[in-house]
Amino acid sequence: SNKKLLILAGDGIGPEVMTQVKRVITWFEKRQGLSFSVSDGLVGGCSIDKHGVPLTDETMAEAMDADAVLLGAVGGPKWDNLPFEIKPERGLLRLRKDMELFANLRPALVFDALAEASSLKTELVEGLDIMIVRELTGGVYFGQPRGIENLPNGERRGVNTQVYTTSEIHRVARVAFELARKRGRKLCSVEKANVMESGLLWREEVTKLHGEYKDIELSHMYADNCAMQLVRQPKQFDVIVTDNLFGDLLSDCAAMLTGSLGMLPSASLGAADANGKRRALYEPVHGSAPDIAGKDLANPLACLLSLSMMLRYSFDLGKEADLLDKAAQEVVAGGFRTGDIMAPGCTKVSTTQMGDEILKAL
Amino acid sequence: SNKKLLILAGDGIGPEVMTQVKRVITWFEKRQGLSFSVSDGLVGGCSIDKHGVPLTDETMAEAMDADAVLLGAVGGPKWDNLPFEIKPERGLLRLRKDMELFANLRPALVFDALAEASSLKTELVEGLDIMIVRELTGGVYFGQPRGIENLPNGERRGVNTQVYTTSEIHRVARVAFELARKRGRKLCSVEKANVMESGLLWREEVTKLHGEYKDIELSHMYADNCAMQLVRQPKQFDVIVTDNLFGDLLSDCAAMLTGSLGMLPSASLGAADANGKRRALYEPVHGSAPDIAGKDLANPLACLLSLSMMLRYSFDLGKEADLLDKAAQEVVAGGFRTGDIMAPGCTKVSTTQMGDEILKAL
Ligand SMILES: CC(C)[C@H](C(=O)O)[C@@H](O)C(=O)O
Ligand SMILES: CC(C)[C@H](C(=O)O)[C@@H](O)C(=O)O
Repeated sequence: SNKKLLILAGDGIGPEVMTQVKRVITWFEKRQGLSFSVSDGLVGGCSIDKHGVPLTDETMAEAMDADAVLLGAVGGPKWDNLPFEIKPERGLLRLRKDMELFANLRPALVFDALAEASSLKTELVEGLDIMIVRELTGGVYFGQPRGIENLPNGERRGVNTQVYTTSEIHRVARVAFELARKRGRKLCSVEKANVMESGLLWREEVTKLHGEYKDIELSHMYADNCAMQLVRQPKQFDVIVTDNLFGDLLSDCAAMLTGSLGMLPSASLGAADANGKRRALYEPVHGSAPDIAGKDLANPLACLLSLSMMLRYSFDLGKEADLLDKAAQEVVAGGFRTGDIMAPGCTKVSTTQMGDEILKAL
Repeated sequence: SNKKLLILAGDGIGPEVMTQVKRVITWFEKRQGLSFSVSDGLVGGCSIDKHGVPLTDETMAEAMDADAVLLGAVGGPKWDNLPFEIKPERGLLRLRKDMELFANLRPALVFDALAEASSLKTELVEGLDIMIVRELTGGVYFGQPRGIENLPNGERRGVNTQVYTTSEIHRVARVAFELARKRGRKLCSVEKANVMESGLLWREEVTKLHGEYKDIELSHMYADNCAMQLVRQPKQFDVIVTDNLFGDLLSDCAAMLTGSLGMLPSASLGAADANGKRRALYEPVHGSAPDIAGKDLANPLACLLSLSMMLRYSFDLGKEADLLDKAAQEVVAGGFRTGDIMAPGCTKVSTTQMGDEILKAL
């Protein structure tokens, strides 16, 4: 059956890494008998340039209708000084919110061949494999009231609201418990329950839910301590679950620990419907990298591995996903490197050449 | 003239590291002609045990009246399950709020002799010297409304409010600009202006203030990117200024990068009065470390260096502070190490012995 796929390449290096993804999709269609119906849309700066908004209602509707959305990256200096409400990021945030993608899965994985690229000592990161589950549709990102107001005394006041309900906490914690069950059976829940009532609620509710997942070892950690522990001894973690804002910082910190930001995919998942289907969006962890955009220098592997996550999570095509993951491992182990992961003795390749090598390995 | 000093040793390893601080204070009185009037008080768990609250009104009044407060550490498993409002941390938070200590100075400094203790590759942290200025009396730590409410549908809802006004931003940014002027003249202001209006206000107001500090190179960075950049290339930073919550995570992350958490002091400063005097509290960055408490194992250097910050910032005793800083450098370079910073070939010492060595070096 036809899988409806919406591709939003976005800004910066988004389009060029997505070109390689499309080549691999075509390979899966020709060689593995998969069948996709792919359409393209605009998000972020490129949508602002064409339509004046970072995401049109039409594209939003297409995303709602798709079986999966694959996104490149959004943003760049060109759009940095736009008013808050029409910045490129709002397009991405609207996709997350309207598709109700409450669970953001961000693996921090160290590729054997790349362990030395980490800024951490090699022995601390070798074999590292953490999964961060970040809540993605709640918290201070979307809480009301929010805004900037003028005070009578001539000052201004900026307000945002951090808010979570029981059910918002449960649904994302469930995803994390389930993932822990398929991995090392260890879950660390992260908040600031010592300072924030919303964090205290988070801790209490995750603890309650633990009753249904007694086979999982649950621990709690304050977010500041987690930032420390990630740097000190990252391998102590298996699955981490945390809120939207802490997840933003901690998952980026964890990603950087791996030394291979250009290799990291992510999945954002919604609730399962009656048929077990979830709305889903897949995107690389790296940003739009405007400094190297359009130069055929970007590493397409993070976006290709996002495609692999899509095959696995949205279409239950585990074997096909394995093929792609293995190809990426092989190509990197074979010494083919884009600039971001280049090392002495390796072969430097362009974005397109990296795509060539992946196709060869497949 | 008599300097009124309030010592709040607190919980865990607080009392034993503070014992060494008192020995050094006595040395300064006997050998350098300084004169302090020192009183002791309770904060945190020890105050809960004695008075049922983490800080009594009497101790609060003493703190308001002191020229400087020196704090050890608060908290421990014994008090972890107390209700939110009387947890040990509330004592510390009340001190910060009532004394209006809006500027938290947290240096992340790598001691030459300890560069190898970092989990980062030595060349990335050798010579590292960052100053993080964290806003300490505003933001989500104190914003109203806050709390947990029961919803009609049986769910619960946890709320906290992130809020900053123009003047709160200006006063802490001023401290950061002034510090940058005495250091490398580079200031990086950190928020999530792409997602939070309070962060946008922060960015706009810091930018305005820059007009008065044109000699300082100002940059802006999103908090998630800052978490990455600290791990990737920490030496790119000189002074960082950020809000209360981001400052909590980022300063802990930066502290851990140094590999010598047991060595890091901090200062929390209020506004200068007509005589240029500021309310001030000094404390080590490390916590109460309940696992090693009472065993004479803790590293007293962070607390001793907090005393040195006090001499420098509260009493303008730069020369005396230098003496103490130099003594700490010498003792560490001489190979004397508590367990946390122990390395092959060094001499392992207890808390008390470390105090002995500091006194010898002085
Ligand atoms: C681009 C930005 C809005 C976004 C976020 O803050 O969530 C990004 O940092 C991310 O982590 O996906
Ligand atoms: C103990 C706790 C309330 C405190 C904070 O969150 O500010 C601590 O983490 C700190 O950084 O001083």
